[in-house]
Amino acid sequence: MKEFSDDLVDYGFSTEVRVRLSETDAVGIVFFGSFASYFDVGRMDYLANLGLNRFGGAVRDLIPGAIVAHETRFKSPARYNDVLTIFVRIAEIGTTSYTFHFKMLNKASSAVVADGSLTIVWMNLEQEPIPVPVAFREVIRQFEGRRLREPRQ
Amino acid sequence: MKEFSDDLVDYGFSTEVRVRLSETDAVGIVFFGSFASYFDVGRMDYLANLGLNRFGGAVRDLIPGAIVAHETRFKSPARYNDVLTIFVRIAEIGTTSYTFHFKMLNKASSAVVADGSLTIVWMNLEQEPIPVPVAFREVIRQFEGRRLREPRQ
Amino acid sequence: MKEFSDDLVDYGFSTEVRVRLSETDAVGIVFFGSFASYFDVGRMDYLANLGLNRFGGAVRDLIPGAIVAHETRFKSPARYNDVLTIFVRIAEIGTTSYTFHFKMLNKASSAVVADGSLTIVWMNLEQEPIPVPVAFREVIRQFEGRRLREPRQ
Amino acid sequence: MKEFSDDLVDYGFSTEVRVRLSETDAVGIVFFGSFASYFDVGRMDYLANLGLNRFGGAVRDLIPGAIVAHETRFKSPARYNDVLTIFVRIAEIGTTSYTFHFKMLNKASSAVVADGSLTIVWMNLEQEPIPVPVAFREVIRQFEGRRLREPRQ
Repeated sequence: MKEFSDDLVDYGFSTEVRVRLSETDAVGIVFFGSFASYFDVGRMDYLANLGLNRFGGAVRDLIPGAIVAHETRFKSPARYNDVLTIFVRIAEIGTTSYTFHFKMLNKASSAVVADGSLTIVWMNLEQEPIPVPVAFREVIRQFEGRRLREPRQ
Repeated sequence: MKEFSDDLVDYGFSTEVRVRLSETDAVGIVFFGSFASYFDVGRMDYLANLGLNRFGGAVRDLIPGAIVAHETRFKSPARYNDVLTIFVRIAEIGTTSYTFHFKMLNKASSAVVADGSLTIVWMNLEQEPIPVPVAFREVIRQFEGRRLREPRQ
Repeated sequence: MKEFSDDLVDYGFSTEVRVRLSETDAVGIVFFGSFASYFDVGRMDYLANLGLNRFGGAVRDLIPGAIVAHETRFKSPARYNDVLTIFVRIAEIGTTSYTFHFKMLNKASSAVVADGSLTIVWMNLEQEPIPVPVAFREVIRQFEGRRLREPRQ
Repeated sequence: MKEFSDDLVDYGFSTEVRVRLSETDAVGIVFFGSFASYFDVGRMDYLANLGLNRFGGAVRDLIPGAIVAHETRFKSPARYNDVLTIFVRIAEIGTTSYTFHFKMLNKASSAVVADGSLTIVWMNLEQEPIPVPVAFREVIRQFEGRRLREPRQ
């Protein structure tokens, strides 16, 4: 498991979701799989905020890429109608991949609900990994600044 | 609301689902929207049973069509791990559309859980309604026999 | 199928959702079952707007009731990232049940995406239908005014 | 990220799911969050196979526990109607937690689709971690045998 920063200052962007009934389960709390949708909202809102959701002529805001890894750690339950703040950063960019980190807090109580990551590999139309485009990388680098981990060249 | 036959003999096909935790909600029962997925399983299994899921060179078993109406009546709650039997028929074929009827029973108790319908319009690539192909109609007619309602010609 | 008013003035409340990737399907549009979640958001926001989500000491904003009928008519497809406005009204209150009507529009294009209804029966703890409480009925009556259909007494 | 065994012999149990339309997304493949439901099916079927789903008087087959970590690595896309085999094992039992490992294969092609894990902490009614019951541990130990990792005592 990766380490996710607990310092909210490290997360340059945040967005919100409110828990829907369909996202809860019979245990009475949010189904653990529903967090994938929340992370995805965080990912897409982050990219839209930087004008990257239409990068390279994206079809319907879907940048070509494949999610290759997803992890979530659950810290405290969330329940129906809770408003959750999703803090989002891109923590790493490699040659062909980049990794989002997320931290989700209950907006009312500030309790940490979950943290986690998504790693995406840039793909060509034949579904082969290709380098993250320089223009994309530059926008992320400017936004994330010194917080961004990049492999040495 | 349509009338759905209570006579199970009217349903020439059935399939099963088992309730997953993700399909329940914080009320402790199956979320009402999860029945759409169950009906869809019933629809697709019915078509596959008649060899129609690949009709006309369907891309990935997806016959070209648009769902235009969906209704469900909920009779008794279903819960996590319940096995539900989905009885399926095509009850009507019009010129450009056809309508599935569903009746779902709790397999263990035989209690009726829900019934409902889905109406699909056949579409060309420009998303305009076109007549249901004769070959498709014939297979349904032979399978459903005298139970099938068709408009007079 | 019920008739749903096309006059947006008849809908005294509206709320919004933005289509998430998880709500779309391989056809490339919003999965028809996802509209149940959207209607549910509309229902809950409507009740919260009138202070009724905590009615009678509701547990976690869940008023005791059972959804007994749900219908949707699909008018035009919605796609990933579309913002949808959900217009909501309670159109009928009977002795033990009440019925929401919904009309969903694409916010950018104003195209009608779907309309439909949800009917809920008030329940006691034994899951038996009981009369809609007078205080609940009064709030709805005041909000909906002459648009509200009620059975003659 | 944990290492998940590629040797299918290490997985003493398997079950199957068939991809539903509702589980795909507009990219044309299974939405990455849908794998949580598949893992959950694998988890529950594994426990039911050992008679543990009713362990300790479980309410509706829900053993008291909290999912604290979930990770998935995606190896190749799955598509509508694909049948996926879920190989399941409990790979570790600690004092208060246990960890499932999953490997999912496309049944027709044998391609690895995904692997991953779920870690669950045993809880009392106050939602505090308590030791995994001895009787539960014993059943797992007998089933998993020498493959099971346990902390030294």
